[in-house]
Amino acid sequence: MDEGYSVTPWSVSGVVDYDKLIKDFGTQPITPDLKERLLYLAGERHHSIERGIYYSHRDLDAVLNDFEKGNKFFLYTGRGPSGPMHIGHAIQFYMTSWLQKRFGANTYIQLTDDEKYLEEKNESLEETNKWAKDNILDIIAAGFDPEKTFIFQDTEYIGNIYKLAVKVARKINFSVVRAVFGFTGETNIGFSFYPAIQIVPSLFEKNRCLIPCAIDQDPFWRLQRDIAESLGYKKAAAIHSKFLPPLTGIAGKMSASAPETAIYLTDTANEIRKKIWKNAFTGGKATIEEHRRFGGNPDVDVPYLWLEMFFEESSARLKKIRDDYVAGKLLSGEMKEILIEKVTKFIELHQQRREKARELLDTFMHSGKLAKLMWDKIYS
Amino acid sequence: MDEGYSVTPWSVSGVVDYDKLIKDFGTQPITPDLKERLLYLAGERHHSIERGIYYSHRDLDAVLNDFEKGNKFFLYTGRGPSGPMHIGHAIQFYMTSWLQKRFGANTYIQLTDDEKYLEEKNESLEETNKWAKDNILDIIAAGFDPEKTFIFQDTEYIGNIYKLAVKVARKINFSVVRAVFGFTGETNIGFSFYPAIQIVPSLFEKNRCLIPCAIDQDPFWRLQRDIAESLGYKKAAAIHSKFLPPLTGIAGKMSASAPETAIYLTDTANEIRKKIWKNAFTGGKATIEEHRRFGGNPDVDVPYLWLEMFFEESSARLKKIRDDYVAGKLLSGEMKEILIEKVTKFIELHQQRREKARELLDTFMHSGKLAKLMWDKIYS
Repeated sequence: MDEGYSVTPWSVSGVVDYDKLIKDFGTQPITPDLKERLLYLAGERHHSIERGIYYSHRDLDAVLNDFEKGNKFFLYTGRGPSGPMHIGHAIQFYMTSWLQKRFGANTYIQLTDDEKYLEEKNESLEETNKWAKDNILDIIAAGFDPEKTFIFQDTEYIGNIYKLAVKVARKINFSVVRAVFGFTGETNIGFSFYPAIQIVPSLFEKNRCLIPCAIDQDPFWRLQRDIAESLGYKKAAAIHSKFLPPLTGIAGKMSASAPETAIYLTDTANEIRKKIWKNAFTGGKATIEEHRRFGGNPDVDVPYLWLEMFFEESSARLKKIRDDYVAGKLLSGEMKEILIEKVTKFIELHQQRREKARELLDTFMHSGKLAKLMWDKIYS
Repeated sequence: MDEGYSVTPWSVSGVVDYDKLIKDFGTQPITPDLKERLLYLAGERHHSIERGIYYSHRDLDAVLNDFEKGNKFFLYTGRGPSGPMHIGHAIQFYMTSWLQKRFGANTYIQLTDDEKYLEEKNESLEETNKWAKDNILDIIAAGFDPEKTFIFQDTEYIGNIYKLAVKVARKINFSVVRAVFGFTGETNIGFSFYPAIQIVPSLFEKNRCLIPCAIDQDPFWRLQRDIAESLGYKKAAAIHSKFLPPLTGIAGKMSASAPETAIYLTDTANEIRKKIWKNAFTGGKATIEEHRRFGGNPDVDVPYLWLEMFFEESSARLKKIRDDYVAGKLLSGEMKEILIEKVTKFIELHQQRREKARELLDTFMHSGKLAKLMWDKIYS
């Protein structure tokens, strides 16, 4: 592409022009007013929202209008289980669980094992299935309410949603998925059917659905919004995040299949330290002397950007880090140490919750209040 | 098409050149030797096979080889439930149930409610579902073994087969279904996925599958044969029938949506008589005198063709009817009367069995020996 970057639900490359994506996708920027209103109704600040990591939306204002009138909305997000989860994936789930807590919303989490197998990310469906079961532990560890959250795997829950998927699919033809997703004659017929499966959970309730996701997933919701009302449902709302940049530099997104770019949620303290020291791209100067004199550039410094996007909750501390870095008072190595401490602490707590998640798996997937309700439903 | 006819799984028009279809589809003719071998192993004659109504095949010889070696094969056929079943549909099921009896084969019968809805034959999935439940009674009435037959509806059984469908779908791309079925950019993504669902039951056992069907369904089996072995299954075998011609003349096939062309399995004796008298295209002459002098043409005479294809079991009687018609001794009205008697008798017995079928529905779909086994299986 002549933009020098490309964003589809299955790959991101180049340095993304986020403002241009808003225009290309036809979404809305989250304005300062809307941001304030969201935080006000949530009753709590959230640094990732404050700092514009979630920067784009569809119908977030309508969601908040509903909420103010006492009408519930529900949350929906998902995960394509083709490998281990990394920090970039975690952000989405921590944000979703924060929204669940603040707004008391039912939350549906889809594990798209069919998608990942059909995308040919994994050799076998068995492998995808293994990753699904692994990833669910990381998802639960993000702190969801076991009675208000339903986590499901497409190939297991399909019996309850196929009729509705077929209704969705009848409204979407191949020309449309070719235009929206860039599918071609080479695309297998399962993969070109798959968008119907990803749309279905946005129709799980008659209430409005809010989808926290990275901006690359928006094409699905554009399609959803074209057809939802004709099926008797509301158009989905979404809030779109930027991508956590890969450790190796600000182009593209973190990839589970390029281990040097990512910190996995299962990495040890040692691995975290080694990866950040070895792979993190910094905005520091070539020598300490130069750095002291001219200062570093935080806007391309991955350790700084990770702190800003997720790991440093305190905006005051973040400002000081930035100022010190620009002034040359803080060295790149010191920035890395700050990040290492934050990430290590985060992963340590995450892993503790991940261990406890094993006992909760059945509650989220089958026996919890919402899960039980969902297994009794056949959508059509 | 310049052949003056067209045959796809979803429409047939014009006067079909059956020999040319064998070449176009790449199937084999059922030779006299193969026919004799089939009837010998069946241990019983069957007039529809003797008379070449089933005229084409794939791997029927391999099926019979398997059987001679003591290896079981299984039967698979299906029905797209978009309306009431007519006599043309019945032939397939009566043949399949005959094969089941003669060879003791497990039999799987798929109700493709998803297909018919996605094809936009019915307005709603609820309507398709209603027809599925209705059609199943006609299918059971064809005399299947309740312990060796599993009848299922795609949208109900999907939970057990979706994983395998996804594996099949990954092996078929859009270019292929465009070439095989004529799909276009206008084809909805559910309908273009559907061939995977129709292929799955041919993989229900590791044994070879034999599919009795009308020749128009062959494109599905051609696809199946391209991919079955790579998934660890055998290529499907098939025997292909000609179409029972519409009452109104030998072009096209009977259509449930053109009531004047068909006798429904639920028609009353009165309706049968009226339809045949009013709509049956005959090979008779314009006046009785002419007919007596020049004779009729049985090869375009629909009542005669129906007797030949299905309703007159005795080849001796059929020959006399033909000879008398050609000689002008038998009038078109008399030919119609012979057919009316046969059809009325057939439908009367069918309807008696159809009533009894209500009690057997659960056995075939859930509680019978094979059905229970199938509900316990997840194919992947």
